[in-house]
Amino acid sequence: MIYVAILGFGVVGSGVYEVMKENSSHIAVKSMEDLGIKYILDIMDIDYPEISDKIIRDFEVIENDPEVRIVVEAIGGVGVAYEYTKRLLSAGKHVVTSNKELVATHGYELMRIASSKKVNYMFEASVGGGIPIIRPMIQCLSANEIEDIYGIMNGTTNYVLTKMFEDGLSFEKALSDAQMLGFAESDPADDVEGYDAARKICILSSLAFGRHVSPEQVHCEGILNISPDDVRCAEQAEMSIKLLGRYVRVSDDKICVFVAPHLVQKNKPIATVSDVFNGIVVHGNAVGEVMFYGQGAGKMPTASAVVADVIDAARHIDKTKNVDLWGDGGDFVEDYRVLNESYFVRAENLSDAVTDIFGDVQMINSENIDGCAFITGKMSGFDFEKKIAELRKETDVFSTIRVLP
Amino acid sequence: MIYVAILGFGVVGSGVYEVMKENSSHIAVKSMEDLGIKYILDIMDIDYPEISDKIIRDFEVIENDPEVRIVVEAIGGVGVAYEYTKRLLSAGKHVVTSNKELVATHGYELMRIASSKKVNYMFEASVGGGIPIIRPMIQCLSANEIEDIYGIMNGTTNYVLTKMFEDGLSFEKALSDAQMLGFAESDPADDVEGYDAARKICILSSLAFGRHVSPEQVHCEGILNISPDDVRCAEQAEMSIKLLGRYVRVSDDKICVFVAPHLVQKNKPIATVSDVFNGIVVHGNAVGEVMFYGQGAGKMPTASAVVADVIDAARHIDKTKNVDLWGDGGDFVEDYRVLNESYFVRAENLSDAVTDIFGDVQMINSENIDGCAFITGKMSGFDFEKKIAELRKETDVFSTIRVLP
Repeated sequence: MIYVAILGFGVVGSGVYEVMKENSSHIAVKSMEDLGIKYILDIMDIDYPEISDKIIRDFEVIENDPEVRIVVEAIGGVGVAYEYTKRLLSAGKHVVTSNKELVATHGYELMRIASSKKVNYMFEASVGGGIPIIRPMIQCLSANEIEDIYGIMNGTTNYVLTKMFEDGLSFEKALSDAQMLGFAESDPADDVEGYDAARKICILSSLAFGRHVSPEQVHCEGILNISPDDVRCAEQAEMSIKLLGRYVRVSDDKICVFVAPHLVQKNKPIATVSDVFNGIVVHGNAVGEVMFYGQGAGKMPTASAVVADVIDAARHIDKTKNVDLWGDGGDFVEDYRVLNESYFVRAENLSDAVTDIFGDVQMINSENIDGCAFITGKMSGFDFEKKIAELRKETDVFSTIRVLP
Repeated sequence: MIYVAILGFGVVGSGVYEVMKENSSHIAVKSMEDLGIKYILDIMDIDYPEISDKIIRDFEVIENDPEVRIVVEAIGGVGVAYEYTKRLLSAGKHVVTSNKELVATHGYELMRIASSKKVNYMFEASVGGGIPIIRPMIQCLSANEIEDIYGIMNGTTNYVLTKMFEDGLSFEKALSDAQMLGFAESDPADDVEGYDAARKICILSSLAFGRHVSPEQVHCEGILNISPDDVRCAEQAEMSIKLLGRYVRVSDDKICVFVAPHLVQKNKPIATVSDVFNGIVVHGNAVGEVMFYGQGAGKMPTASAVVADVIDAARHIDKTKNVDLWGDGGDFVEDYRVLNESYFVRAENLSDAVTDIFGDVQMINSENIDGCAFITGKMSGFDFEKKIAELRKETDVFSTIRVLP
């Protein structure tokens, strides 16, 4: 029997408990050993009679119990979770988590501790919830240089954008619907401003580039300014609007990493990823494009990935595995504006100035919208900003959105 | 340095050579050791000067060279490839392959030999080409009971069906186009009759169920009978037609495994998988639906997956890993007709008999087609066959196609 402890009995922690209970015989076969949950640590009162004998409030009980070999950190954030994870790894216990903020911020340091203590720090669930993405990148795509990654990594904003497209809702109405359905937090800033997606693209970028990319290195735009008029223009151009996390390898030693809304051609597979689903496209120099699709969040999908890590940790109980996934951080993230891409522009009144400033553009038929709209040719983000400043001298510019190449 | 040999220098073998050459420094990092290709075995004359010093014709040189630790089997089929694989594993060498026919037919036996000799038999590339699917199923979805799998597993037939839909081509014309473009073999039977897809769903079913499923246990229908009229009807019903390999767990000890064309609702992600791309949906009891998408064949994508296995074998050069993926075969595959599903029917003349025989059906507006068409309610395949036999007494039945639930 290998004993497991769960820190935090919220959505993820209780999901882990339920998946381990429901699929226990199957899991024992896969782990090649029985797994038993010995402790559940939570500071809240928990009304869940069948676990009452496991609930504890004192972290040190877990830290000091040599029987506990694997700990699921389902606390979240970078406060207590960071401290406990360091202490558990230092105590020689394997730690499994879905905590993207912690991995994106301190993943390198935590893997170093794990490596020095010959234990594992595993976080398959930190990106894409239950969607297999971390291991496929480490193992199945290991023969490839990863050229770029783009993906819908936040289900809340994808739900909001889907409802704006499908039902013509405003951003505010779509968001309040999402909140009512439990798909968005009461404070939705982390999602709608793109910070949640930023943490996930950090983790994938660190994996792809082999060095730690921190959230503060990631330029981040959210979807607050997307209007129904932008949606109608996108529809006219047979495009969709998606909030994408992106990684682009610009040279052997420079990368771009950013989060921003993008117009995406409807015939691309990523455009069909709707509602709370996530889809992540990875482009390798040998494999071409592969996409991973599924529920990027939610209790059971996330628990599925956490428990898979627990099983893997159990199978490697006396070994380390993938604890040196990336090296230290550094000054290798380029300004996202170096990329040459096209932009969607919607403005009050499009005079001849547009062609004078932007050259040939693709006009969008926009009968029922406020203003006029077009898509530029490819140019750097620096050039685009200069040209938009010129256009603003002639007319009001309502919105500008990047177009996915 | 770990030495590798390649058996067969055709499309896959030469791709493996090129990926290993192009990404060699990167691969050395991932493998934690340099990998060198020592021999390339081929019976053909090969005009490729830079490898002339590696080319050999005598298999025993590889078999008897203790320096060769990993062998890529890129011969294909179940003749020589089967014999060589057994001998190599017995000689204590790791074997990596994309040979789906061999894995589907003899995978259990070959894994037993690998296990007894403490080496690895790896075949990530055997399903979905470069798309990560085998490892994600083994590892990332290990906490789940796999309820069902469905997927587009053959790029040739998907290309043909895509062209029938997009360009209104007949099956014959679409197939000859595919042959001209090199997407279909001159003898396309393996693809269009579904045998290639059958081998792949065998491998995924063996993984999901944990026991060996053989090709002869798989009911197999191809796309030879799909007509432009069927395509037009599907369009009318906002559906697409896809050749799917399917696995359905009907109880703890019974499964259905089959290959057949299906009508698929256009809003399902699998419906957007077009051209030569593959898409495989796996449904786990915790994770829900996840989809893996990418190029399911082709030189470089397949080589990408083979080389990833070579890297993994190198990292586990003195260990075994996943060599007991499934147990022996047996009598657990149910007749595919036990499933309760809907069917599309196109017939000469739809009299009142349709309602008398099938009850409520969904009629399809079919102005420009030969005959009339409808979709039945759900019923077992046995019931459906009886009812169709009754309908045939009243009118000519042109086609019947299963509808994906």
